[in-house]
Amino acid sequence: MPIIESIPNISEGRRSEVIEAIAAAIRAVPGVRLLDHSSDPAHNRSVFTLAGDGPPLKAAILAMYEQALAHIDLRSHTGEHPRLGAVDVVPFVPIEGVTMAQCVALAKEVAQEQPSRFGVPIFLYEDASTDPARKNLEDIRRGEFEGLAAKMASAGWAPDFGPTAPHASAGASVIGARMPLIAYNINLNTDRLDVAKKIAAAIRHSSGGFRFVKAAGFALKDRGIVQVSMNLTNYEKTPIFRVFETVKREADRHGVSILESEIVGLVPAAALNATAEFYLQIAGFNADQVLENKLRAT
Amino acid sequence: MPIIESIPNISEGRRSEVIEAIAAAIRAVPGVRLLDHSSDPAHNRSVFTLAGDGPPLKAAILAMYEQALAHIDLRSHTGEHPRLGAVDVVPFVPIEGVTMAQCVALAKEVAQEQPSRFGVPIFLYEDASTDPARKNLEDIRRGEFEGLAAKMASAGWAPDFGPTAPHASAGASVIGARMPLIAYNINLNTDRLDVAKKIAAAIRHSSGGFRFVKAAGFALKDRGIVQVSMNLTNYEKTPIFRVFETVKREADRHGVSILESEIVGLVPAAALNATAEFYLQIAGFNADQVLENKLRAT
Repeated sequence: MPIIESIPNISEGRRSEVIEAIAAAIRAVPGVRLLDHSSDPAHNRSVFTLAGDGPPLKAAILAMYEQALAHIDLRSHTGEHPRLGAVDVVPFVPIEGVTMAQCVALAKEVAQEQPSRFGVPIFLYEDASTDPARKNLEDIRRGEFEGLAAKMASAGWAPDFGPTAPHASAGASVIGARMPLIAYNINLNTDRLDVAKKIAAAIRHSSGGFRFVKAAGFALKDRGIVQVSMNLTNYEKTPIFRVFETVKREADRHGVSILESEIVGLVPAAALNATAEFYLQIAGFNADQVLENKLRAT
Repeated sequence: MPIIESIPNISEGRRSEVIEAIAAAIRAVPGVRLLDHSSDPAHNRSVFTLAGDGPPLKAAILAMYEQALAHIDLRSHTGEHPRLGAVDVVPFVPIEGVTMAQCVALAKEVAQEQPSRFGVPIFLYEDASTDPARKNLEDIRRGEFEGLAAKMASAGWAPDFGPTAPHASAGASVIGARMPLIAYNINLNTDRLDVAKKIAAAIRHSSGGFRFVKAAGFALKDRGIVQVSMNLTNYEKTPIFRVFETVKREADRHGVSILESEIVGLVPAAALNATAEFYLQIAGFNADQVLENKLRAT
C-alpha cells in the first residue's frame, strides 16, 4: 500500500486541550497513523506528522480543519513563528510506492474540497505550485495573517482555490507537495560565528549555493562552538554527502574542521544509503539488497 | 515478532526436482518465508535463504533434512565446492528483535533433535561452537565427506550431537549461529594482481588483519583489473567503512586507486547506516530516526 506523509502546521502551541482535540480527530480516521506531534509554546504552533494512503489522509486533514477552525482565532493569536492561517501549512510527501505527481494530485484534491466545507482560501506551494512566484512558502507567507487581506487584494495573489478574501478567523492555508525534508546541522570546531555564516552563505540556494539547501550560521554559546544549520529540501537532487563535503572544504579554507554533524528528527533510508554508496564507491547498488527490505518484500 | 535468518547449504545443485522438493518442504511450513534459493551446478550445491521465528525455522530445517536424506547420497556426489554432508551447513543469523544467544540456543535445539530423527552427526560452529578448534567452518570441513570417518575417529573430533560415525549417505552437518555476513568486493584501478593479493593479506584476519575479514586477491581478466574479494563476518565489530578506508590507504601506498566496490547479495541496513554515520560524523544517531523504521514502528 502506498505511504504518503503529511506534516500539517497548526497555529496553536499553548492550549493542550485544543492540540489534543486535533490529535484525537486525526487518530479517529481509520488508515491514518499519527506518527508524532510536537508543540512550541513560544512559536504558538504545533506540527503533526501523519502517514497513510491518499483517501484516509484527505479525511484526516479535513477533520483537522474542523477542529482548528472551531478553536483557533488568528485575530487573537500571538507567537514568534510567521503564520497566515489557523491551519498554516499542509505538505504531502511521497514516502513509499507513490510518486510526487500523485502527491500533487492529492494536495489539489484537498485544496479544492476544503473551501466548499470550511471556506478557507488556499495557496498551492512547492511541487503543487501553479506559479513560480508562489512556489516558496516564505514568499506566500510574507505579510502574515495581519497583511493577508491587503495581499490577496493585490495583483497576482488571488488564491488557487476558495474565496478571494481571507477567512475572518482562520486566514488562509498553504497546501502542496514536496520531497521529504532533512533537518541537518554541522557543528564546527571553532567559536567564529563569521565562519559559520560564510559557509552557510556559500552552500545555500538563495546566495548562490546548492539548489535544495537552506542554511544559516548560529553560535552555540553554551558549547563555545558554531553551527551551520540546514534544511535539505530534496535529498535526491542535492544529496547530504555533497553538502557535507562542501562544508568541510569551505571550513578548511578558514582553518576550521568539522566537529560533528546531527540529523534532527527523521531521515529517509535512501538518503543514508546514498551516502554509504558514495563514500564506499559502491557500483550497481540497489535498495533490494538491503536485507530488511528483502525480508519485508517476501 | 523476532526474525531469524537461516541459510542452509545443501549438496545438490544439479537435479532441479530434488532442489524443488526441498524448496517445497520449506515453503510448506507456516511462519517460514523462503526468501531466495540459488544453485550452482559446478559446485553441485544449493543455498536456501529462510526467515522466521525460531520454532517454524526449526520445523523447516527438519523438513529439509527429510528431503535431503531421501534424495542425496554423498558417496556418488561430485562438485567443486568442499562439503562433508548432504545438509552441509546450517547457520542461524539474528536479524530483528532477537539476540545472538537466542540463535545459539536455536542451533543447539536443532542440533540435538535432528540426530534422534535422522541420525546425522552434528558439529557446532561459530558462535554456537563449544571448542575453539572447531569454531571455523573450514577447520571442521577439512578432509570433506571422503575423510570424515577417519577424522571422526581421531582425537578431538567426536561430534557435538548424534552418532560418533558419519551417516552412510549424508555424512555430517555443521550447525551454528553467526552474524549476518557481507560479501564485499573492492575493484582496483590496476591489473597488478600482486597489489590485490598484498592488500588482501594486509586486511584479513588469518594474516594479521582485521578480526572479522576473510579476503583474497583475484584478477578480473575480462576487465583488465584486479579485485580484493572479501567476506565481512561481523559488520558491528569490523565495520565496512574501516575495511574500505584501510584498503584505500594500502592501495595508495602502491600508487593504485579504488575504482569501485560492490556488495554481493544482501547487506543489513545497520551496516549502511553506520557507514553514513561515520563519514558524515553524525553525533547521537539512532535507528529510530530512519523514517521508514518510524513508519513501521507506529
